[in-house]
Amino acid sequence: MTIGVLHGPNLNLLGRRQPELYGTRTLAGIDEALRALAGELGVDLEILQSNHEGALVDAVQDMAARVGGFVVNAAGYTHTSVALLDALLAVDLPYVEVHLTNIQGRERFRRRSLLSADALGTVSGFGATSYELGLRALVSHLRRGG
Amino acid sequence: MTIGVLHGPNLNLLGRRQPELYGTRTLAGIDEALRALAGELGVDLEILQSNHEGALVDAVQDMAARVGGFVVNAAGYTHTSVALLDALLAVDLPYVEVHLTNIQGRERFRRRSLLSADALGTVSGFGATSYELGLRALVSHLRRGG
Amino acid sequence: MTIGVLHGPNLNLLGRRQPELYGTRTLAGIDEALRALAGELGVDLEILQSNHEGALVDAVQDMAARVGGFVVNAAGYTHTSVALLDALLAVDLPYVEVHLTNIQGRERFRRRSLLSADALGTVSGFGATSYELGLRALVSHLRRGG
Amino acid sequence: MTIGVLHGPNLNLLGRRQPELYGTRTLAGIDEALRALAGELGVDLEILQSNHEGALVDAVQDMAARVGGFVVNAAGYTHTSVALLDALLAVDLPYVEVHLTNIQGRERFRRRSLLSADALGTVSGFGATSYELGLRALVSHLRRGG
Amino acid sequence: MTIGVLHGPNLNLLGRRQPELYGTRTLAGIDEALRALAGELGVDLEILQSNHEGALVDAVQDMAARVGGFVVNAAGYTHTSVALLDALLAVDLPYVEVHLTNIQGRERFRRRSLLSADALGTVSGFGATSYELGLRALVSHLRRGG
Amino acid sequence: MTIGVLHGPNLNLLGRRQPELYGTRTLAGIDEALRALAGELGVDLEILQSNHEGALVDAVQDMAARVGGFVVNAAGYTHTSVALLDALLAVDLPYVEVHLTNIQGRERFRRRSLLSADALGTVSGFGATSYELGLRALVSHLRRGG
Amino acid sequence: MTIGVLHGPNLNLLGRRQPELYGTRTLAGIDEALRALAGELGVDLEILQSNHEGALVDAVQDMAARVGGFVVNAAGYTHTSVALLDALLAVDLPYVEVHLTNIQGRERFRRRSLLSADALGTVSGFGATSYELGLRALVSHLRRGG
Amino acid sequence: MTIGVLHGPNLNLLGRRQPELYGTRTLAGIDEALRALAGELGVDLEILQSNHEGALVDAVQDMAARVGGFVVNAAGYTHTSVALLDALLAVDLPYVEVHLTNIQGRERFRRRSLLSADALGTVSGFGATSYELGLRALVSHLRRGG
Amino acid sequence: MTIGVLHGPNLNLLGRRQPELYGTRTLAGIDEALRALAGELGVDLEILQSNHEGALVDAVQDMAARVGGFVVNAAGYTHTSVALLDALLAVDLPYVEVHLTNIQGRERFRRRSLLSADALGTVSGFGATSYELGLRALVSHLRRGG
Amino acid sequence: MTIGVLHGPNLNLLGRRQPELYGTRTLAGIDEALRALAGELGVDLEILQSNHEGALVDAVQDMAARVGGFVVNAAGYTHTSVALLDALLAVDLPYVEVHLTNIQGRERFRRRSLLSADALGTVSGFGATSYELGLRALVSHLRRGG
Amino acid sequence: MTIGVLHGPNLNLLGRRQPELYGTRTLAGIDEALRALAGELGVDLEILQSNHEGALVDAVQDMAARVGGFVVNAAGYTHTSVALLDALLAVDLPYVEVHLTNIQGRERFRRRSLLSADALGTVSGFGATSYELGLRALVSHLRRGG
Amino acid sequence: MTIGVLHGPNLNLLGRRQPELYGTRTLAGIDEALRALAGELGVDLEILQSNHEGALVDAVQDMAARVGGFVVNAAGYTHTSVALLDALLAVDLPYVEVHLTNIQGRERFRRRSLLSADALGTVSGFGATSYELGLRALVSHLRRGG
Repeated sequence: MTIGVLHGPNLNLLGRRQPELYGTRTLAGIDEALRALAGELGVDLEILQSNHEGALVDAVQDMAARVGGFVVNAAGYTHTSVALLDALLAVDLPYVEVHLTNIQGRERFRRRSLLSADALGTVSGFGATSYELGLRALVSHLRRGG
Repeated sequence: MTIGVLHGPNLNLLGRRQPELYGTRTLAGIDEALRALAGELGVDLEILQSNHEGALVDAVQDMAARVGGFVVNAAGYTHTSVALLDALLAVDLPYVEVHLTNIQGRERFRRRSLLSADALGTVSGFGATSYELGLRALVSHLRRGG
Repeated sequence: MTIGVLHGPNLNLLGRRQPELYGTRTLAGIDEALRALAGELGVDLEILQSNHEGALVDAVQDMAARVGGFVVNAAGYTHTSVALLDALLAVDLPYVEVHLTNIQGRERFRRRSLLSADALGTVSGFGATSYELGLRALVSHLRRGG
Repeated sequence: MTIGVLHGPNLNLLGRRQPELYGTRTLAGIDEALRALAGELGVDLEILQSNHEGALVDAVQDMAARVGGFVVNAAGYTHTSVALLDALLAVDLPYVEVHLTNIQGRERFRRRSLLSADALGTVSGFGATSYELGLRALVSHLRRGG
Repeated sequence: MTIGVLHGPNLNLLGRRQPELYGTRTLAGIDEALRALAGELGVDLEILQSNHEGALVDAVQDMAARVGGFVVNAAGYTHTSVALLDALLAVDLPYVEVHLTNIQGRERFRRRSLLSADALGTVSGFGATSYELGLRALVSHLRRGG
Repeated sequence: MTIGVLHGPNLNLLGRRQPELYGTRTLAGIDEALRALAGELGVDLEILQSNHEGALVDAVQDMAARVGGFVVNAAGYTHTSVALLDALLAVDLPYVEVHLTNIQGRERFRRRSLLSADALGTVSGFGATSYELGLRALVSHLRRGG
Repeated sequence: MTIGVLHGPNLNLLGRRQPELYGTRTLAGIDEALRALAGELGVDLEILQSNHEGALVDAVQDMAARVGGFVVNAAGYTHTSVALLDALLAVDLPYVEVHLTNIQGRERFRRRSLLSADALGTVSGFGATSYELGLRALVSHLRRGG
Repeated sequence: MTIGVLHGPNLNLLGRRQPELYGTRTLAGIDEALRALAGELGVDLEILQSNHEGALVDAVQDMAARVGGFVVNAAGYTHTSVALLDALLAVDLPYVEVHLTNIQGRERFRRRSLLSADALGTVSGFGATSYELGLRALVSHLRRGG
Repeated sequence: MTIGVLHGPNLNLLGRRQPELYGTRTLAGIDEALRALAGELGVDLEILQSNHEGALVDAVQDMAARVGGFVVNAAGYTHTSVALLDALLAVDLPYVEVHLTNIQGRERFRRRSLLSADALGTVSGFGATSYELGLRALVSHLRRGG
Repeated sequence: MTIGVLHGPNLNLLGRRQPELYGTRTLAGIDEALRALAGELGVDLEILQSNHEGALVDAVQDMAARVGGFVVNAAGYTHTSVALLDALLAVDLPYVEVHLTNIQGRERFRRRSLLSADALGTVSGFGATSYELGLRALVSHLRRGG
Repeated sequence: MTIGVLHGPNLNLLGRRQPELYGTRTLAGIDEALRALAGELGVDLEILQSNHEGALVDAVQDMAARVGGFVVNAAGYTHTSVALLDALLAVDLPYVEVHLTNIQGRERFRRRSLLSADALGTVSGFGATSYELGLRALVSHLRRGG
Repeated sequence: MTIGVLHGPNLNLLGRRQPELYGTRTLAGIDEALRALAGELGVDLEILQSNHEGALVDAVQDMAARVGGFVVNAAGYTHTSVALLDALLAVDLPYVEVHLTNIQGRERFRRRSLLSADALGTVSGFGATSYELGLRALVSHLRRGG
């Protein structure tokens, strides 16, 4: 079983970007931890980061043939991308929405997520741990027969 | 006379994507039918599909020198892209907005189109037929002197 | 196969009414063109114009036994008539909503249509051509088994 | 004592119209049951159905000289007719608003009633029984001295 | 010069209807006073009252060939009738909107008038005097060359 | 067959509390009348009044094993209690929402009911009679097979 | 009988200010015409123009001892001055609100008047004639016993 | 280290309540699984379910002396209880908000959580697994020094 | 004369709870100061704190027979409890609403008070002093004859 | 220690202005009582009333060098004056907002105060007593070290 | 060429007023820098500061005969003064709106400017530099033929 | 010192695109003028135009190592790109937002800028001059120590 992991715009700057808000771990560090957990859970990961909305849409379409579901942190596109939502709906695979920060406690425009209503579930606010919990949740869901 | 046809994000999945909603015809099938109709109407088509908002903007700018107007199904970018609207306004050519589904009967965020107010007109809800009607309308408009 | 065509309030003034907005063709001219197209498509038309909301409701109920669907330009009642919507829902026949002008580009109160969400589809902005496209769309839908 | 009963647009289709929503009883059947109950309660009924807003307004004005109050199911005009509300206020008689369905559980535009605030009370959601309860409530109110 | 005067729904009840709100003068009394003033101003009047929205639309269309403008008290249709607005716009004659009561000081749904934005002007709150002032204003406007 | 009757906060003060609004009958008087009607209809009643939201939730859960449905006047909790709504949904029994006053004609915050959308139906505005009509409606519904 | 006439900010520029919107008559011209009409109606006028909200409030308080009511064109303060409204309420005299233009047909922020709800009535859209009609209306009201 | 676990109203019905929505596991089953996970993580749990908002507030205050943080599923009180939010803020301990269902995909009134903005983070949509992920997140947070 | 003093949820934590916001005085300290002031003013106090909305409703009903009015700090229930408002209205005694903090300067959901519109008056923002001023205001009001 | 007292527009009419709403005490009477209380509290007062927003702004700036804080009843400017708020913020002195009436129970536009969020606190609804309580609160605050 | 410079309320306090927000330069200092820049650009300045809305309106009217345009920092009146906007529109001269702070990043009520839509342009957020840039922009515009 | 200049979508069409709105200067012309001014100010420029949101995000990240701040005209992305805002926040450099047109005077959806609140400041409405003023402001800010 393979899981797709999608990192949205500016997440490549993690560790450097507003560390008081997003923490000091780099994206490479997070990916490493995720791969370790994936190994533990017996699944493979396919990971992609992009600052381009269209590239994320392409990735959802492309990975769909190989993965059982997605862990998605769409970052800034969370609030604005109907195209990414449509890609996830189109491939008809379960996805978990994760956020490093608690978006409900931030600016008004960050509180609305276009992805939430159709997600399997959401995890937000726990920094890099959000990804790990999201991966656990998705694998557990798929193991139960999805 | 040449007409530009723009397909927005995820339309490349047609036929596979939520067929109960979007029908079973593929994008290739739709394009073929459009070309047949274009032949009948005596016009040429230049067709592009992209998942990238910027690529659609580029295409509008690029095609503008060769086409007399556009048939546009912006899909998810319908609701979010001021950039695409601005491209269509900038090249100052008539465009027809088409949708496979009746967007007024769907989720709230799909009911607002940024493209509608400045379109020549809109056709929505008839599946692949929406494109054909849109092409007829545009050609008829241009033939009358636009 | 017979199709019902309903013209709402003030459409009897077409050609005289704000021609810069609604064009110079009269309602009789539009009906003639529609009948010609109907002949081409092999269907009959039953046409009614009324300024009375109740008369339009009566007509939907009355025509329902004879027609396979409706092409409706409810004009001013588009934005205010739940009764007309209910009539169309009650007789359970497909209908296409058409508008001469692009209502999304006009005053705020004209942008909301009570009829859109339950229509088969909508065509707006192409002047008299909107009716013709709407008729094509409805016949094509009914021919495919509706 | 006579009670006016007003049925709004499309209620003449009852039994045929969306029976999963409005039930299988016809309007004639409902009227018959209402007359039976009226007999039991010792009151006369004057009943009118119309699809025309103006005809309902006329009826309120006309019946006012003969009835002690109204049971009103304004159907689609519930949400849009200030004229009907004004007629009921003008004749200064108590009226009970009834609905076959629970309008609070339906589309947004059906949840607002222009008639509610000034009604003696409302009964909704019990199908044809709503009328019977409304009649009981009005007669009981009038018997207590209104 | 002839002026059309349109009275909307329930105004036929004036004098009987909520006199604390609408005053004790009957519609016949108001019409008489208006005709007297018209005589003084040297104009003829054509007057119609109806409870039917469609009949008011018909009247606007019909009177248009004979009158130079309208004095309109659309009563309940003030707040709900796009059809009446469209009729007034279609015949392209100036109209003055009048109200017996000050609608800005009443219920929320009475504060919005669909007719105001395109009216020559409005007069409200002076009871029957509103009509007389409206007639003066319209005649004065037309005498100055409209 | 047993019916649960739930009285929300402050209804124990009936007869003393704002009699011009809520009438002069006490809660004991209403319960007595309800029991009499229940006898007539051949059903038993289980009645509870509480000022505590949690106690009402407990009661719904507890009575659920013994009753066929509920007549609920949640009073102040009507507008604020998702917990009470969830209890009624959780036990999956039909309930009728009743109100002594016509809540649509009162303050803005009283016009929204969290309970309405999922109720079998609602009765409001008839004072103590609202309960009786609600009981009749519920029994009639259950007798017809629910 | 004396009537107070209040002109709000920028009305001293009339005739020079946006004549396509406000007409070519100067304030002096309007005042002259008003005094002529006042003579005809047998009343005196006390007139004040100010660009200062506080000065208008002072004037209302000061004139109150000498006048029977006010004709007020508050111009820009129409939409923003609770203080002016309070002054008019405090002196407890009837006032007529007048506007040169039809404020309902202008920018959104001009459509709300803080003065309307408590005015005797309003006249708007007739240019300088609005003042004359307002004066007629106020005098007629006061003559009838106010 | 001890963690407080709070279950809000109606969660005691789990397994019986709308299983298509909330799953088939009972609250006892969930608690058992949580205790097993707690054992694995080396922490103790103190668990309370109540249908009473006040009892939940009391519990937060009472447990505060013994626990390092809370896992809270406030169920219906999520959307309405400022009191519960204030209790959590008052004791100044980190809390994780969990939900069985994805509340962003449900009715409008369930999409707003009063608890989210101040929570450490939220987990929703994974059924009983949401609790387990929430417990993991809280323990991990506290272990890192909170 | 006796005055009821009601403290809402979490006020029992005063002094410990967010002292930078609510100050360092305990509830016992506030009550002591209030009793001292009451002595000075020659009135008795009956004081109750509860975290339970229902208990506060019970208390209002119960104390009503013994007190001349209430000083109420409903804390979190200020913003959500129609039931508490109804209790205060039902017993028909004057009440003063007090708050330790200036609720208009806090989160959006704290700015709306359901209790304010019907209160004799409100005092907020002065910490424990708010209670003392509220008590003074209420006693002064009752002494003047209420 | 000196305290500035600011009375906004129309408060000079107190005693004459709508006494059923604002009471029968004159502004001179209120000032006298305030001075008496000030004497009792050992502070001096500097008092100003103006109907001019700009004069109140000037006064705040001017008094700032001499006073320790302000008691402000901005009357109509409460709801509309950002300039007055800015003056109070600019001089960086604590101020107490007072109102004679309970503004939360009045018209919608009176319920929003621009001054509240930055005030030390507010007192409203107690007539002239509001000022006295406000003065006590401010002095007490300043004595504690402000 | 002469340019009018208008400083709104409280700007006379600059340097003393909230320096962390508005900087440490005094208004005299800003005016001196502006005059130096004006000399460099070859234009004269006429400068006025007032705390009175009416005085600013008067100034616009008065200066209009002598200046070619305005640089306006309306401070608190930016958000509330239709009268000032009307003055600027009435004299039909271009004006540049400037702000010391970035008003889009401040409180909600500061984000709406009544002056922006009709301004030549706006400059905000650069402290005293905003004025200098605004002056440059206006002069450059007027030199190009405005 | 180097400054990054970012041009958003469709700005490559300047000079050709709606010249009545955006002026006749080409982007090359603007860049040339900017470079000339940069020379004068003693700074270097790095300039990029893209129609792709992701490319603009990439550019912000990439240029960040070389520039001291940004002058940004995000064109259509101004209103829709959280991703671009996040990039600018992530690199933690000051940026100035510029617009050719006065966006506050255009369509509703153009009046909201996601970039404004966190910008150093904004300049809009002066055509190509906006860029020059923005560059001056940024350099001046950085020279003062940023």
